This record gives sequence, structure tokens and C-alpha cells, in this order.
Amino acid sequence: MYSQRVKLSGHIIDSFTLPRTLDEIMDQGGDLEFEEMKVGKHKTDPSSAIIRITTEDEITLNRILDNIQEYGANILDEEEVVLKESQKDKTVPENFYSTTNYDTSIKFDGEWIPIENIEMDCVLTVDTENKKAMCKPLNNIKKGEKIVVGGQGVKVRPLERVRGKNIFEFMNSEASSEKPTQSIIHKVATQMLETKAKGGKVLVVGGPAVIHTGCSEVLASLIREGYVNKLYAGNALATHDIENALLGTSLGVNMDDGSLVVSGHKHHLMAINTINKAGSIKDAVEQGVLTKGIMYECVKNEVPYVLAGSIRDDGPLPDVITDSQIAQQKMREGLEDVDMVIMIATLLHSVATGNLMPARIKSVCVDMSPASVTKLSDRGSAQVISIVTDIGSFLPMLREELARLEE
Amino acid sequence: MYSQRVKLSGHIIDSFTLPRTLDEIMDQGGDLEFEEMKVGKHKTDPSSAIIRITTEDEITLNRILDNIQEYGANILDEEEVVLKESQKDKTVPENFYSTTNYDTSIKFDGEWIPIENIEMDCVLTVDTENKKAMCKPLNNIKKGEKIVVGGQGVKVRPLERVRGKNIFEFMNSEASSEKPTQSIIHKVATQMLETKAKGGKVLVVGGPAVIHTGCSEVLASLIREGYVNKLYAGNALATHDIENALLGTSLGVNMDDGSLVVSGHKHHLMAINTINKAGSIKDAVEQGVLTKGIMYECVKNEVPYVLAGSIRDDGPLPDVITDSQIAQQKMREGLEDVDMVIMIATLLHSVATGNLMPARIKSVCVDMSPASVTKLSDRGSAQVISIVTDIGSFLPMLREELARLEE
Amino acid sequence: MYSQRVKLSGHIIDSFTLPRTLDEIMDQGGDLEFEEMKVGKHKTDPSSAIIRITTEDEITLNRILDNIQEYGANILDEEEVVLKESQKDKTVPENFYSTTNYDTSIKFDGEWIPIENIEMDCVLTVDTENKKAMCKPLNNIKKGEKIVVGGQGVKVRPLERVRGKNIFEFMNSEASSEKPTQSIIHKVATQMLETKAKGGKVLVVGGPAVIHTGCSEVLASLIREGYVNKLYAGNALATHDIENALLGTSLGVNMDDGSLVVSGHKHHLMAINTINKAGSIKDAVEQGVLTKGIMYECVKNEVPYVLAGSIRDDGPLPDVITDSQIAQQKMREGLEDVDMVIMIATLLHSVATGNLMPARIKSVCVDMSPASVTKLSDRGSAQVISIVTDIGSFLPMLREELARLEE
Amino acid sequence: MYSQRVKLSGHIIDSFTLPRTLDEIMDQGGDLEFEEMKVGKHKTDPSSAIIRITTEDEITLNRILDNIQEYGANILDEEEVVLKESQKDKTVPENFYSTTNYDTSIKFDGEWIPIENIEMDCVLTVDTENKKAMCKPLNNIKKGEKIVVGGQGVKVRPLERVRGKNIFEFMNSEASSEKPTQSIIHKVATQMLETKAKGGKVLVVGGPAVIHTGCSEVLASLIREGYVNKLYAGNALATHDIENALLGTSLGVNMDDGSLVVSGHKHHLMAINTINKAGSIKDAVEQGVLTKGIMYECVKNEVPYVLAGSIRDDGPLPDVITDSQIAQQKMREGLEDVDMVIMIATLLHSVATGNLMPARIKSVCVDMSPASVTKLSDRGSAQVISIVTDIGSFLPMLREELARLEE
Repeated sequence: MYSQRVKLSGHIIDSFTLPRTLDEIMDQGGDLEFEEMKVGKHKTDPSSAIIRITTEDEITLNRILDNIQEYGANILDEEEVVLKESQKDKTVPENFYSTTNYDTSIKFDGEWIPIENIEMDCVLTVDTENKKAMCKPLNNIKKGEKIVVGGQGVKVRPLERVRGKNIFEFMNSEASSEKPTQSIIHKVATQMLETKAKGGKVLVVGGPAVIHTGCSEVLASLIREGYVNKLYAGNALATHDIENALLGTSLGVNMDDGSLVVSGHKHHLMAINTINKAGSIKDAVEQGVLTKGIMYECVKNEVPYVLAGSIRDDGPLPDVITDSQIAQQKMREGLEDVDMVIMIATLLHSVATGNLMPARIKSVCVDMSPASVTKLSDRGSAQVISIVTDIGSFLPMLREELARLEE
Repeated sequence: MYSQRVKLSGHIIDSFTLPRTLDEIMDQGGDLEFEEMKVGKHKTDPSSAIIRITTEDEITLNRILDNIQEYGANILDEEEVVLKESQKDKTVPENFYSTTNYDTSIKFDGEWIPIENIEMDCVLTVDTENKKAMCKPLNNIKKGEKIVVGGQGVKVRPLERVRGKNIFEFMNSEASSEKPTQSIIHKVATQMLETKAKGGKVLVVGGPAVIHTGCSEVLASLIREGYVNKLYAGNALATHDIENALLGTSLGVNMDDGSLVVSGHKHHLMAINTINKAGSIKDAVEQGVLTKGIMYECVKNEVPYVLAGSIRDDGPLPDVITDSQIAQQKMREGLEDVDMVIMIATLLHSVATGNLMPARIKSVCVDMSPASVTKLSDRGSAQVISIVTDIGSFLPMLREELARLEE
Repeated sequence: MYSQRVKLSGHIIDSFTLPRTLDEIMDQGGDLEFEEMKVGKHKTDPSSAIIRITTEDEITLNRILDNIQEYGANILDEEEVVLKESQKDKTVPENFYSTTNYDTSIKFDGEWIPIENIEMDCVLTVDTENKKAMCKPLNNIKKGEKIVVGGQGVKVRPLERVRGKNIFEFMNSEASSEKPTQSIIHKVATQMLETKAKGGKVLVVGGPAVIHTGCSEVLASLIREGYVNKLYAGNALATHDIENALLGTSLGVNMDDGSLVVSGHKHHLMAINTINKAGSIKDAVEQGVLTKGIMYECVKNEVPYVLAGSIRDDGPLPDVITDSQIAQQKMREGLEDVDMVIMIATLLHSVATGNLMPARIKSVCVDMSPASVTKLSDRGSAQVISIVTDIGSFLPMLREELARLEE
Repeated sequence: MYSQRVKLSGHIIDSFTLPRTLDEIMDQGGDLEFEEMKVGKHKTDPSSAIIRITTEDEITLNRILDNIQEYGANILDEEEVVLKESQKDKTVPENFYSTTNYDTSIKFDGEWIPIENIEMDCVLTVDTENKKAMCKPLNNIKKGEKIVVGGQGVKVRPLERVRGKNIFEFMNSEASSEKPTQSIIHKVATQMLETKAKGGKVLVVGGPAVIHTGCSEVLASLIREGYVNKLYAGNALATHDIENALLGTSLGVNMDDGSLVVSGHKHHLMAINTINKAGSIKDAVEQGVLTKGIMYECVKNEVPYVLAGSIRDDGPLPDVITDSQIAQQKMREGLEDVDMVIMIATLLHSVATGNLMPARIKSVCVDMSPASVTKLSDRGSAQVISIVTDIGSFLPMLREELARLEE
């Protein structure tokens, strides 16, 4: 018989850490015994439990330990991580440890080393000399790196559901369009102001619907006024924003009255052509060619942006990073100092950003389609708050609410 | 060979009357010859065409004539309608004429008699003594009534697409969430004010999402201020509006902050219980039990409402008409003096109202789901303008725009 | 200080009974102490816990007890239910107990009396003389009936998540179209055969899309072969089924090749006209007018059906029950001997049926739209399995799978 | 006054070429006069019209000519194209001609030169020495190239709606899930067999839902049996196909019974790791590591594939082209000999492929979400047939239908 003790601590009951752990053990056919169970009697008291797991074979035991670690159950008898060398670039040993996006640390050489910039679906490597542990995407692994295998010596601390005070709390449920819109916008605005007050950074990840729904100027003003400090988008948002700035249309639709404009179908190409002539978006701003809009404000206010290319791009604009791995790496690096993310109307860029983000970043996903926001949670970014609403009204109402709260 | 001349007139080209007619003739294997074709050279000039249709058999000819009449092609040699008696209540002769929702008149006894209150999927009956023609649902037909059969002697005038001036024009395209929201709301508000200025009536058809999204007070104020003059809804809208007025929740969700309220799942039953105790909604208002909200404003401002029951109702409230045929008839009668309809977040009531409406009524359907608004057009109410947006922001933004325009 | 002991038993950990209970207590600001906690070590062992709840005031204590009862936490010191008389037809005392759809019993006169035909959002009344307890919709209450108030003396047993064996288990998660379709259909077929083998009854609740997607004959054959034993639908399913049987079309679309048929827009009226002439669907079958299709097979095989009317009906057919409350009552009664429900492509009828059903009935909801199946769970019918798929392929594949399994 | 004569010919009435042209002229405030109008009396007879357009200023005239050319109205007095040199790489003169995806030719040096590989949203350049005209994306333009400006000398022939015979005809309408599924699948199968019989090539563009819905083996068999001759996809389809081949799961879900597999969340990384170790997909096949599935069959049957990278990729696999512009160019080249495209469950790759395709290619887009297929048409690929159905049943039913037809 194989056996191991694990400890759960924190808000293990209302965060479902405990029940999920017990569930997993029983699903795998393991036996369990409570050696200790302390339930916090008050809101602020954490609980803890020590459970002995017993199985008939080692494989099952390891499976269980591997899986319950994700819920925050950590092996009690603090053994060290097991490391194995990579035999070839971009490859890892079979039994590699695959990361979650929760705070993670490893026990190495007698110490708990926290992982910086944790990201899901990556692997952990250890610089044994400098006692540093890193989270890396598979394809960044070099031959000879020391890779964490199995779950031993890895401690994961899932996000705890905070009670009461958290303004985001109530929304952390399923996507639905049948919720009080104004009340939700109030909460997002409050969180933005809180982040700003702390000197934190807000990233907007946006799709072209921001422009199509007539909100180019609104997002531009949020950038100008310092509410938005970074921008991730694709060629389409930038192109239609510039089309709107230069020609007053988005995909050829007049933004003032929604009418189709003559020859409007080539307006986006005209926008790209203009920027190509200038050299880059920044050049166009400096030459006085581009004088308003989202991209203009980014340049003027030194708000960094990553424009990631895709196979459906026309052009693309010279500022677009066409290699998806380079763009991903830029996005990854840019996330390091971000405290809040607002994803608007783009499934591709939202899922991409969600994949790269540690769970600690407050994030909101706004889309018209419940399917889109659901997809984001399905892909593992469970901590993202979903708001199903019309972009064309969300952004103006958000700006108004911010102004109201700032008064 | 069988032959018949038809005449098309009006804006037959840009309204697609002409091409659809030619298309139909050719699809049925008929031959055609242009006897006359006048194309209006200016915007305001109508065009006209006289076409001779020839087929090999009479059935095909009749089929063609039957179908192209819907597009507005009328038989030139003005023959009279053919009438046949109903042999039994709720039944009509096999070859009955089935109505569209466009302006229709019939030639009887040498005169063109217009049909009042035209409605799609009905039959035409003629009171031969008083020379009156009526549009009736199948199940209202009594044995002995004289029913119009075939398409002969029936003239249909489809809605023409008005150029330029019509504020609704641009929106008359497919449902999409990627349109400039603020510009669309401006147009709806303008049309409402225009209707009000002419002394016309605006009907709102609403679903419970109006309340769930926190807009009870907004719609209540539109009623109070005279922008909304009638209301069609179901038990759910009324119940949750009253729940909100009495308890501050909708389906147990606190409308101030979106949180779930303790025991909230029984709030809607408490609302119904309260009204049942009072006797009716009106009684509850008069007894001072119900003091705000949509239903309260309807009672206070003598805005008529039809609450139609359905099989999913809890309760229902005493004011709900549980028989669907009686409710349908009330809705039909109520539409007679309506000039504009705004349908909000209810597929069932919107389709029902759409079915009963003549095409001349300006109508707008607002829903979060493109599928819902599309379904409405698929069911024959093609003239309805579709707006895909969040109810929770549409109503507040509409009220603001109305206020802005009234200044 | 106010205090009460509650007991939880069964699979309280993996069914989330325990954590939800603790959560609720803490959310309300109550204190708690574990007096006993037994965790079953093996899959089949139930667990139990006795918890003492302490609050500062009686209202909070009652709130907590009221809410945690829904999760299956029952007051330990078994007090009797409190009864209060209704003062007026269709009304109940303020503090009435509102039902869930889980197995429920009440303690009255020293005994636990189970409630038959439990249904959510109803009230409990007790026939004190005969010691019988009933679940009734609010509007069926008569003045003088004795109504259960508060949660005292009421015991609720939520459905437990069964481990391993249950064929439905894995699907009991969120609606998604990205699941292995063939594997899901296999499970539904297996459950149908199991139900049939036990002599149980399968109810189909269907919308007109069954016909529009070309599956009239498939559902007809399932009825003929005894796989489907009851049918709930509206006027539309029956009308289009009959249209299809008589004229080969559904809403005027040719079911053989999907083409639009000439004059097809009036086919559904022709179908209703034909049945009106015959007298009823049954009469039409007996007169040899209706010779195939779903409704034909219902008549021939004595499969009972409820056709519930709605305000969007044309006609309706003479067999349609136009009063929604009468239809609801028929549906309620018909559910008493049903063991499995398959809801197909109808939000209205599915939600209505879901509202009337005890949680114990195995139920499956099949729809193309994730929003529709989600709506069903949101409305409280959480135990319903959601399948997001195309009706037009679901039914043929289900029939094939049934045939394959029967071999 | 400015004036120009245009000629329309072909099926100008039922293809809406004529009415759209007249509409445009009038919308722009132009005057028009019919100089000639011949209407084909029989199905097979084309019609023609010569129209003189008069405007008050040259700009309006050019606008009109520019726009109606898209509908197929060509300037009668056959002037030559106007060419202007590009002043800088990736830029074109302001008044550049922007392409449609319809058959296009230009008049140069007295001759009509057809454009090969026409593609929408590109520009036309002329090699004046060799009298060759090419369609190029903006960013491929080199300084000094001669660019077509304005619409003069450009002739566009839109797709004509073919009457009767075309098996695709009926489906060419709006996306809806309420259509006879089996009949639609029959038509797609017939078109595939027709293409195969002519020696044509069928391209499948697929997303990962093909694997998630359990259809890996089905698509693999269609490749093996020669029904599918090319594949465009992303990293996800290939990764999950390989995950399925190696481990029997897709995103960690067991494809046999839909259950979640232990440690399944890292299966896709294990799949990528395995291929990285082998070197490439082809290497993995040759080394006997990968022995079944879609990618395996592509390698074995020499079916070319393009795997285009995106920013949300894990890995990616070594075969993935991470630069979106290089991938786009590969896709463009691969389309040259393709006759039919089936797009399955991928918005990104479908829109990308749609953008690159001439309108002549028969194409079908299959998706569960009506919004996705609608988006494709909105982006200009109007000729694509939309099928809203469940992937998990579409592919098995398609294979069965192909087998049935081949018998």
C-alpha cells in the first residue's frame, strides 16, 4: 500500500478546495483519513485539514497528488522537487510538471522558491546554481535545462474567493446578459479607479468592434485621461481606428449616422496605404497625418501597444508584429507590471492574453456573445469576470461612470 | 396557351418589385414580354412596367399570378374577386386567398375596397350587401361567410423603400451587434418624438429582461413622461416589476448591486401573493400597496396593457389573460391606433405582435441575441428594424437621448 | 444569542452540500462549531456532519436555516412544521415556505410525511385530518387551507451526484457544442432503453424545428416503435407535422430538397383548415385524411399528447388547449408517471415542463443554441442535461443508435 | 454636365445587377436614361441594358461608375485603364482601384487582359512590357510598379445566380439551424463527388472542434479515401489530432466516453513535446510514433497542409508557420488549383481563406454558431454557403452520405 499525507489550508471550504480534493481522491479509488480538521469559525479565520491518502499502487497515488495540487492540496512531508534534464531543445522529460496560472513555489535545496511570472501550460525549470526557478513555455526550453517532473515539491496556492468586500465578487458567476448593466459598470469603474489610485496599470485588449460600434473616441479619451495604460490588439482595431480618424468610417460605415459610404470598402486599405507612406503610426502622428483616435493617443501619451498579426490581416500596418511567437513574447513581457485587464470584443486576443496571465491579475472580459466569454473560461482563465453587453454602450457608460466617480 | 397582363408601378426597381417578379415568372417556366417600361429618372419619379405572361397551362399561370401579387404585381385587366362560401365554422374553401401584412384592396362590384386592419396569414371575407371587406383569422370564420379565393381582384401594395429622408432607412439591414450604438439610439429617439409630435401612439412589447437588467425605473419614467402609450407583456415582466417595486429584487437578484438576496427565490411568489391579496394590480395601486414601477405607472397614467399568459407562468397575476386566443384578440384590437412598436427582449410576445401588425407600423426589435431578432424577420415581419444590443444600456441611453433632443 | 444544531448527511462533500452550508452560515455572519464530522472513506460510504449555528438575532438564524435547507441541511432537533391558514383564495401567509423540486417531507404530528409530486416554486399545504401533505401552485390555494410557513419541520433531500456508474454523469456540466456528439447520443439512447426495460415512460417535449429540420418521420417512428410514450408541444409542431404529412412541406419549405414551394406560405393554414374540416386530429386520422407523421402516430399508438396554445399561434388546431393554466395543469398531471424527458428545440415548452418536474426525472434538453439550454438551468432546472447540437442530425443519429443497441 | 454610357449584360435582372445599378445612380443624385433594354424571355436567355448616366459634376460621376462596376456595370465606351506609378514600397497612388473577388479583366493597349488569381481587397498592377496584369496585396507592391487607378478600363463579372440546376442554389440564403439537415448534407456530398469526378481539388479548412467533437477519425478517413485533397488549419487542430492519436483525448477529454482524463490538461503539451522530439509531424510518422489521425493521413497520402500560427498557440508544433504573412502567402498559393472549400468550425481560418479566394470557388462554411457563418459573409465572402449544424454529426453524416452515393 502506498500512502502520503497532504495539507490543505486557507479558505479551503468556501473556496471548494476541500471538497474537490476529497472528490478527486475518491474518484481515483483512493482511501482517505482525516488526521486533523480545523474549521475557522469566523469570516476571517482560515481552516486547515491534514489528510492521509492511501492507494494500492504508486501510479494512482501520484495521479491523485498531481491533480489535487491544482486545488491547493500540498504534500505535507516536504520533499524536494525532482529535476530532470532536457535532452533536446523545445523538449522536456515525459513526466514534466505542467503549470497552472496560480501562485506557485517549489522546494529546492531546503527552501521554498517562488516562481515569478507564472503562466498556465508552461513548464518549470530550475537554475540550480543561482537557486532560481522559472516558468517557461515548452518551445523556449533549451537542451540541458533542468525541468521539474512530477508534482513533488511543488506548492500551488489557488485564488481564494474573498468574502464580502471584493467589488468583483458577485459577478464571478456565469455569463449572462440578464444582469443589471449599470450596477456592473459601476463595479468595473470602481476597480479601475482603485487600480489607478495604487499606481497600478490597466491593460485594454480590444477588437475592431470597438471601432465599428462607434467607440473609437471613447477609448481614445480613456487613454488620454490615464485610465488605460497599455493596449493589446490586432491589425484590425488599429486599421479601423485610423480609418475612422482619417475618413470618419469603420469598414466603410459612416460612424455619425451608420450609413454606408461610397467606395467605403476600400477605406481600410486607404488607411494602411497612408500609414505605409508615413512609415509607421508614430511617424504619421509626428508628421501631423494622424491627429486623433486610439492609436494617436497611444503615441501621444506613450502608452505602449502590441499589435499582433493574424492570417486574416489586410496590409498589415507596419507596426504589426507578424510573427505570432514574437508577438506572444512581447505580450508576455508586457503583462509583468499589469494589475487589471479589460478585454473587449476579441476572442483571439483575449484568449491569447488570458493564457499568458497569472490568475492574480484582475480581469474583465466584455463581449456581446455569451459563447465568447464562456470560451475564455473554458480555456482555463476561470478567474476572468464575464460581462455580456453591447460594446457600443459599455464604453460610453464606463466613461460616464468614471467621470461621475471622480467628481 | 394561357396569358395574362400584369402591371407594376411605384418604385419597382429599387424596391426589387420588378426583378422579383421577372424571377418568379422564369422560375415557373413562364414566358414574358415587356409591353411597356417607364423608368423614373429622378428620385421622386415612380416607374412602371406592363408585362404579358404566357404559360402552357392554367395552373402555372395562376401560380405565377398568385405569387407575384405578393411583390406588388397586379393583374392589369381588372377582374373582380371570386368569392366562395365557407361550409363550416373555422374553415374556408381550399383555394382561399392568404393575406400579407401589406396594404391590400379588393375589386368588388366595380370598386376597389381597401381592407382595414390587414394582418398576415389571415383570409379575406366580403360583406356583399354592405360592400365591406374584412381580414379575419381562420378560426374566426363562420359558416356562410363569403371568402376570397385565388388572387384575382386582389391588389397588394408592398412597402416601398424610401430613399434618403427616412431615418430608419440605414438600419433596415441585417441584425448585427457591430453597428454604431449611439447613432442607432438617436434614430429610435427621433422616431419616437416624431410619432409623439403627430399625436401617434407608441407601444412597448417587453420581456422580463427589462427588469433583470435594472431598467424597471427607466421604462416606468418613459411611461410617466408620455413616450410610451401602451404595453404588451407577459406575467413575468409584470411580476418582476412588482417584485422590484416591493422588494428591490428581480428573480431574487438585488437590483442595486447585483447580489443574490437571501430567500430571493421566493420573492416573485411574494409579489404575486401580494397582488392576489389586493385583488388586482389596479387595486394594489389604489390601496397604496404598489407605489412605483412600470405597472404602477401604467395604472396611474391610464396606459392600457395586455398581459398574456403562458404555460411557464407562476401564479399568474390576476390581470393576466390566460387564454391565448382572447389575449391575441385584445392585442389585435389594441394595435389599431398604434403608430410605432418597440419590442424589447421577448421573442414570444414580439413574434406574436409582429404577426398581428400591418407592415405600415414603424417597428423596432431590440434584443441581445441576433438569433431572436432574425427569427422575427424570418416569421414574415420583414419590415421590423433589428437592434442587437444590451437592454440594460439601451433603455437608459434612449431616455437620455430623448431628454437631450427635447431640450 | 440564538442557536440551532443542523445535520447534513449523504454525499455531503462531493455534492457540495457541506461547503455551501458553511459558506452560507459565514456569509450571514453566523458562528459555527462542528460537533461531529464523519467522512466516508470509500466511494459508497456516506458522510455526515452535525453543526451548531449561533447568531446574534433570531431573524438571521431563521434566514440561515431557511437557506441551508435547500442544500439539504436539516434542523436536527426535529420540530414540527408550523401551519397557518390562508385568509383568501390564491393567497398564503407572508412567511410561506416555497418549494424546491427535490424530494421533500414534513414533520407533522410526530411523523415524517413525504410530499408527492413535488414541484418548484409552489407551497405546501397540510390536510391535518388525514395527515396528508400536498404541493400546490399558489393560485390553486383555497381560503382556509393550512399552509406551511418557515422552514421548520421541512426536510429536503437534494439529488446526490452519483459517482462512476451513472451514464449521465459526465454530461452534467455546462452546455457546449464542443463535445463528442456520437458518444453523447450513445448515452441518451442507453438511458432510453434502460427506462423502457423498466417499463418506464419517456416524454418528448418538442418545438417546430423538429419538423423544419426534416425529422418528422424520425420522431414518428420513435413513437411507433414505443420509444416515446408521451408528447408535449405547441400548435406549431402539430401544424407543421400535419403540413408535412399532407403537403410535404414545413413552413412552405420542401422537406425533400429544402426548396421553397410555390404558395408555401399558406400551407400551414391549409393544414389547419383541413383539420378544422375533419373536426380534430383524431377525426382526421379516422377519416383517412391524415395518414402519417408524428400526430398520426400519437393517435394510432394511443400516445397521449398535450398541445398548449400561445399568443403567436395561427389557427390554432382544434386539439390545442388555449388556456395556459388548463394546459399547465394537464402537463403537471401527465408528468406523474414519467421517468425520462427529452426536450427538443423549444424554450417555452421546455422551461414550462422543467418548472413542473420533480428533480428525480432524468431529463435531457437538446437545442442548437447554448443560450436556450443555459436558460433552462438558470430557471432552476439544474438537473437537466444540456446537449447543444443540431436537431436535424440528433434525432436520426439517436434512432440509429437505438436500433444498433437493440440488435 | 458629365455623362457616360454603361452596359449591363448577363442575367442582370434576377442577379439584381440592374436594380442595384439603378439604385446606386439615383442614390448619388445622378440622372439616367435607358438607351436599350433587352429582356431574355427564357431561362437561358441573357438580358442586356445600355444606360446613360448624367451628373452635375465629375466626382459624382466617377463615384457612381466606381460603385456600379462592382455590380457588373461596365463603361461602354471602352477606354483603357489608367496607370500610375507607386512612389514607395507597400504604397499605391491615392485613387487606387481596389479589387473584388469576381472575375476581372482590364483593357490595356487595346486588349482585354484577364486577371489571374483574383482576390478581394487587393490592387491591380500591370507589367506594361509583357502586357500582363496581376492582383497583389498592398504590402507586396514595390516602388515603381504601375498601379491601376480609378475604375476606367476595368471590367468585373459578378457571379450569376444560376437557375434550377445548381445543387447549391437553394442553400444560398441566410444561415439558419432550422433547415432540413439530411437534405443539405446530401447536396454537399454530391458537390464533392462532382468535384472529384472532374479531377478537381477539395480543401478543408478546420478548427479544433473537429477533434473535440470526436471527428478526428472521420476527417482522417475522408483524406485517406481521397475526398479531401488539402488542409488548412492552425496549431490547435493538429495538436489535438495528435493528442487524440497518441493519448485518446482532446483537450484532456476522453473521446470514447466524454469523461475528463486524469492529468488530461497537459496532454496537448505532451503531444507537442513528442513531435518536438521527433523533429516534425512527418518525422513522427516516419519514425512510427504517429500512426493515425488527420495529420498522419495527410503525410501518408501526400495531402498538403498549411498550419498557420496564432498568438494563442501553445508550442507550437514545429510544422506551424508562425509568421502570419508567410502563412497567408502559402494559403494564397495553395488556393490556385482548388475547386471546392469546406470550412469547418474555425472563424479565423475561414475568414482568412475567404479573403484569399476568388468567388468562383464553391465554398461551404459549417459552424454551430450562426454568428460565425454570418461574419464570413459580412466580410465580403458572400458566395459562401452557410450551414449551421453540429460538427460532431455533420462529418459522420457526410461520410455516410458519400459512401451511399458511391455505391
